[in-house]
Amino acid sequence: MRDLRFDERGLIPAIVQDAQNGQVLMMAYMNQESLKQTLLTGFTHFFSRSRNRFWKKGEESGHVQQVKEVLYDCDGDTLLVRVEQEVAACHTGHRSCFFRRFHPSSGQIEEVEPPLFDPRDVYGKGK
Amino acid sequence: MRDLRFDERGLIPAIVQDAQNGQVLMMAYMNQESLKQTLLTGFTHFFSRSRNRFWKKGEESGHVQQVKEVLYDCDGDTLLVRVEQEVAACHTGHRSCFFRRFHPSSGQIEEVEPPLFDPRDVYGKGK
Repeated sequence: MRDLRFDERGLIPAIVQDAQNGQVLMMAYMNQESLKQTLLTGFTHFFSRSRNRFWKKGEESGHVQQVKEVLYDCDGDTLLVRVEQEVAACHTGHRSCFFRRFHPSSGQIEEVEPPLFDPRDVYGKGK
Repeated sequence: MRDLRFDERGLIPAIVQDAQNGQVLMMAYMNQESLKQTLLTGFTHFFSRSRNRFWKKGEESGHVQQVKEVLYDCDGDTLLVRVEQEVAACHTGHRSCFFRRFHPSSGQIEEVEPPLFDPRDVYGKGK
């Protein structure tokens, strides 16, 4: 942990990748406590900047991420967490949060994969 | 571009992934200008926070990244750039900047892949 550099807010970005097929699923932020819990429990925990609180991924939806491997980069300021993802990572119902792209020639925006579920069935109303 | 949210510094984190084998290579930051040049030229450009300047990846080493696809996440605050990487992404000589991990059971740090070259042969002395 002493090789890691948390930013001025005490946070470090964590890229989450599907350990089986390599798909990048999401990026979120961890503080020291969420990294500690991630390593200790084997399930990802993050820190929400908008809600200003520590959270376990999947605590509401059940779509947890079981940790296979935690790597960090040359500068020690980014984590790469390789996981086994339950159902889907994105609150929109998509497997990955990265479901839109700029079309390489036209620059138009397009969806690259459809959602796996309707978020209204999984999360409470008003979300 | 209007779907994207640059932070208070005018930056957005960009995860770079090998489009062929899915390896996550690095994470760096882009400003509007570097994203525009990335889409326009088909080669990744970033913004260095420490040197406070715009740069083209590989401008010194020749280890450029040819862009295959640029995706962005549900919140519009992170990019995922899928590339064809020339030689290696990391200035240490490793293919990926994520070459160390916390061992899942012991928590000890270990290297997961060896470097591909000696950085002293590629970058100027004193780097």
